[in-house]
Amino acid sequence: MPETKSNPGNFFEDFHPGRELVHATPLTLSEGDIALYRALTGSRQALYSSAPFARAAGFHGLPVDPLLAFHVVFGKTVPDISLNAVANLGYGEGRFLRPVYAGETLRAVSEVIGRKENSNGRTGVVWVRTRGLDSEDAPVMSYVRWVMVHKREAASPAPDPVVPDLADAVTPDELVTGADYGAWNDDLSGSPHRYEDYEIGERIDHVDGMCVEEAEHQTATRLYQNTARVHFDAHAQKDSRFGRRLIYGGVVISIARALSFNGLGNACQMLALNGGTHAGPLFAGDTVYAWSEILDKAELGDRVGALRLRLVAAKDHPCSDFPLRGEDGRYAPDVLLDFDYWAAIPRR
Amino acid sequence: MPETKSNPGNFFEDFHPGRELVHATPLTLSEGDIALYRALTGSRQALYSSAPFARAAGFHGLPVDPLLAFHVVFGKTVPDISLNAVANLGYGEGRFLRPVYAGETLRAVSEVIGRKENSNGRTGVVWVRTRGLDSEDAPVMSYVRWVMVHKREAASPAPDPVVPDLADAVTPDELVTGADYGAWNDDLSGSPHRYEDYEIGERIDHVDGMCVEEAEHQTATRLYQNTARVHFDAHAQKDSRFGRRLIYGGVVISIARALSFNGLGNACQMLALNGGTHAGPLFAGDTVYAWSEILDKAELGDRVGALRLRLVAAKDHPCSDFPLRGEDGRYAPDVLLDFDYWAAIPRR
Amino acid sequence: MPETKSNPGNFFEDFHPGRELVHATPLTLSEGDIALYRALTGSRQALYSSAPFARAAGFHGLPVDPLLAFHVVFGKTVPDISLNAVANLGYGEGRFLRPVYAGETLRAVSEVIGRKENSNGRTGVVWVRTRGLDSEDAPVMSYVRWVMVHKREAASPAPDPVVPDLADAVTPDELVTGADYGAWNDDLSGSPHRYEDYEIGERIDHVDGMCVEEAEHQTATRLYQNTARVHFDAHAQKDSRFGRRLIYGGVVISIARALSFNGLGNACQMLALNGGTHAGPLFAGDTVYAWSEILDKAELGDRVGALRLRLVAAKDHPCSDFPLRGEDGRYAPDVLLDFDYWAAIPRR
Repeated sequence: MPETKSNPGNFFEDFHPGRELVHATPLTLSEGDIALYRALTGSRQALYSSAPFARAAGFHGLPVDPLLAFHVVFGKTVPDISLNAVANLGYGEGRFLRPVYAGETLRAVSEVIGRKENSNGRTGVVWVRTRGLDSEDAPVMSYVRWVMVHKREAASPAPDPVVPDLADAVTPDELVTGADYGAWNDDLSGSPHRYEDYEIGERIDHVDGMCVEEAEHQTATRLYQNTARVHFDAHAQKDSRFGRRLIYGGVVISIARALSFNGLGNACQMLALNGGTHAGPLFAGDTVYAWSEILDKAELGDRVGALRLRLVAAKDHPCSDFPLRGEDGRYAPDVLLDFDYWAAIPRR
Repeated sequence: MPETKSNPGNFFEDFHPGRELVHATPLTLSEGDIALYRALTGSRQALYSSAPFARAAGFHGLPVDPLLAFHVVFGKTVPDISLNAVANLGYGEGRFLRPVYAGETLRAVSEVIGRKENSNGRTGVVWVRTRGLDSEDAPVMSYVRWVMVHKREAASPAPDPVVPDLADAVTPDELVTGADYGAWNDDLSGSPHRYEDYEIGERIDHVDGMCVEEAEHQTATRLYQNTARVHFDAHAQKDSRFGRRLIYGGVVISIARALSFNGLGNACQMLALNGGTHAGPLFAGDTVYAWSEILDKAELGDRVGALRLRLVAAKDHPCSDFPLRGEDGRYAPDVLLDFDYWAAIPRR
Repeated sequence: MPETKSNPGNFFEDFHPGRELVHATPLTLSEGDIALYRALTGSRQALYSSAPFARAAGFHGLPVDPLLAFHVVFGKTVPDISLNAVANLGYGEGRFLRPVYAGETLRAVSEVIGRKENSNGRTGVVWVRTRGLDSEDAPVMSYVRWVMVHKREAASPAPDPVVPDLADAVTPDELVTGADYGAWNDDLSGSPHRYEDYEIGERIDHVDGMCVEEAEHQTATRLYQNTARVHFDAHAQKDSRFGRRLIYGGVVISIARALSFNGLGNACQMLALNGGTHAGPLFAGDTVYAWSEILDKAELGDRVGALRLRLVAAKDHPCSDFPLRGEDGRYAPDVLLDFDYWAAIPRR
């Protein structure tokens, strides 16, 4: 009898720095994905809802929300990178290199850029740089992710540690909009506030709350073809640490981002992902709230600038008090997400 | 620090008769929306399922269900009209002015046509006429809606009441099909019953029942980009009157309408919305049943007529006894909806 | 008052051998259906995800998963065949005659090919051969299904039994791929295993588990326009044998098939359905697991072969022990599905 043909995933020992992983299942993004993304997240940004609005702003047509493209690329990496993961530790150096449109096909490749065994000898941290490629193999996005993964055998010798030197944030000169932002109608975008109206240090409570059901996060996560078992296998999760299915962190990012429409309606186009931490787990039945802080600003051209934003999500905790950390410096117990990104916003 | 940039919504004082509100987020309707609408409502009408069937009937292609277009237009009005609403009181003078197709972009504008403060001094009723516009700014639908909204301050003086004079029903000469109904196959439509087979006063039990889950109504309501908090914020709703999320009334309309296929399979095209009352709340886990009554008939041409229909929905109450009102004249406790509309139906 | 116009369905007496039933509601399949199918089942096969991958393999574009097309055709038959069914007993002689693409419109016709009254005098078994037709009325699939249905009146005389002689399996010479499998990239398909790597008798545990929620199976079943009441009417099901909604068996087939990606990633294209038994009911909250057995192999051409596969699904029972039957020869209590099909797979 041949050995089993199901995928055992990779273990710490398999992640040699320099190794390239070609991930399976290229996906042709469609209008169906766009509609589902809207229906599952509550996204209301005009740029990702209306083709005429997008064309007026200089795009070739209705673009795909960068977060949808990100989740699709990320989902492809799961069977090769995080099937045996203990925890998803962070993201950085994420860049959206051009707008993506319906009809385009994305696939993903990753390069191992670092690894370091943990002192317990049973796990280690692995860094990979993942690129999303179009059907011409040109990159449309790139990001670094680091995860804690199991070793195959505790007896494996610890390799020399390789820890990549990552930038704190993408710099404004690296940001690409792919459109001239020629025309922008604030009535249609739903916000009168443009680049000049936001101040560094300003905080915005996004007010609204969104409850997430099991069927919703499962459907979203399958849309992205992300197969991580903790999101789907209710039977096995009964015996897990949490006793139930854990919601994919990308669902939290997208819902918090959709909630941020209420206060950031003109900051539609995510350009870069500087960093992100999943501070706590979200479970079905919890309600997500969010707030944002303006971390930085940069002029990209005469008609468009960029805001560097901290996006914080919390569960069952309306954000008028801007929850983040406790007195001990640790994330407050109901904080879910601390996410740092750049978004384009039209100038006056 | 600037004032918060999140949308506070409008209050009674803001609704000056004659004021125009341009609503945010134009939406390009797609095949994805059509598939999701079918998957979330159970719609089975041939006219909205098959492009060849629709073309044979004289349409340019597969049209978007008028109720889908209605919910999308309605959804856009929520942040400006009903964010601070106490109750959605009624609809009237609704007309679908032409068929809408995938690929078209809809936006919404409303005009305030009336307001009247309530005797309690804390709330008032506001009437708006909303138009759905295409990308050429031509109207594709129009309807009047009245809602009870909070005053910003109880001390605000009561304005002179302006109460619009609304028609009881759209008249047959105002109905527009946009197609000649040249060919219609009863085997494919699923019903042998045409215009001539229905009698005024006839009642039809639609027999089937459809349970609605939290994930379903949330997904549908987000598809329409309707953001009313009562549908999504489970945490806040715990302390509300009902203690739980309330399902968007449009979900009830669409499910009841989809159920009406069983008995009204040829009456596909909704042409006008004469009036509608949400008689009671629907919650997740409830099963919706429906029945219809033929209120009126009108010949629109040689090949097509219209039925004026009352559509009644009830929860956890099969409709073989046609529930509507109790002996006291009030809606029976399990009645959800009393909806009055015109639909086109082919003639023999 | 006219008689009710709602559909009473057909009873045993109505199924005369030779009778043709033209089913309602042709459906134009779209990119929206493809996205929803993926989001609801977790399908990850490259052939049904990426248009460039499919074109490289010789298809005209991104094909619709044959199971999606099957469920759509099957759904149309429910109002005419199984509205009064006691049980869905089996399938056989199922053939997918060519690939189907988004934009095509499918409808269904069935011919009654057998009937046999049961000894209880109250029910009988009916055999129908259903064909899925495209908009040119050319068949794209064909299958036989047999169901137990109620008699309208117990007093009706038993007809002469007509029992069709069905093949145990579709023969390899009847299998049609509709593509030359010219190019196939194992990195992108997600599996290094091709035709030559599988041995008859080999069994594969697909490892992963997928929980199904009420909202998910209802949404999928409505996507297919399948209206069987047991899936949707929670109120009525309270008094039924199971006390709750029963999940459509096609949902089980599709989820088990999607799980089989993990071990059968290259066996994308279902070509024939030899037989299928729904061994037990699935309810919301259960987790589906699956395993496969290689029953047979056949070379279809230089570049492509076919595997005959048994696909077994079980609930809340990981399949490393390959559950199927108990010592009494009956299906084990947690087995849901025993499904026999042919799938194309590229050769080396």
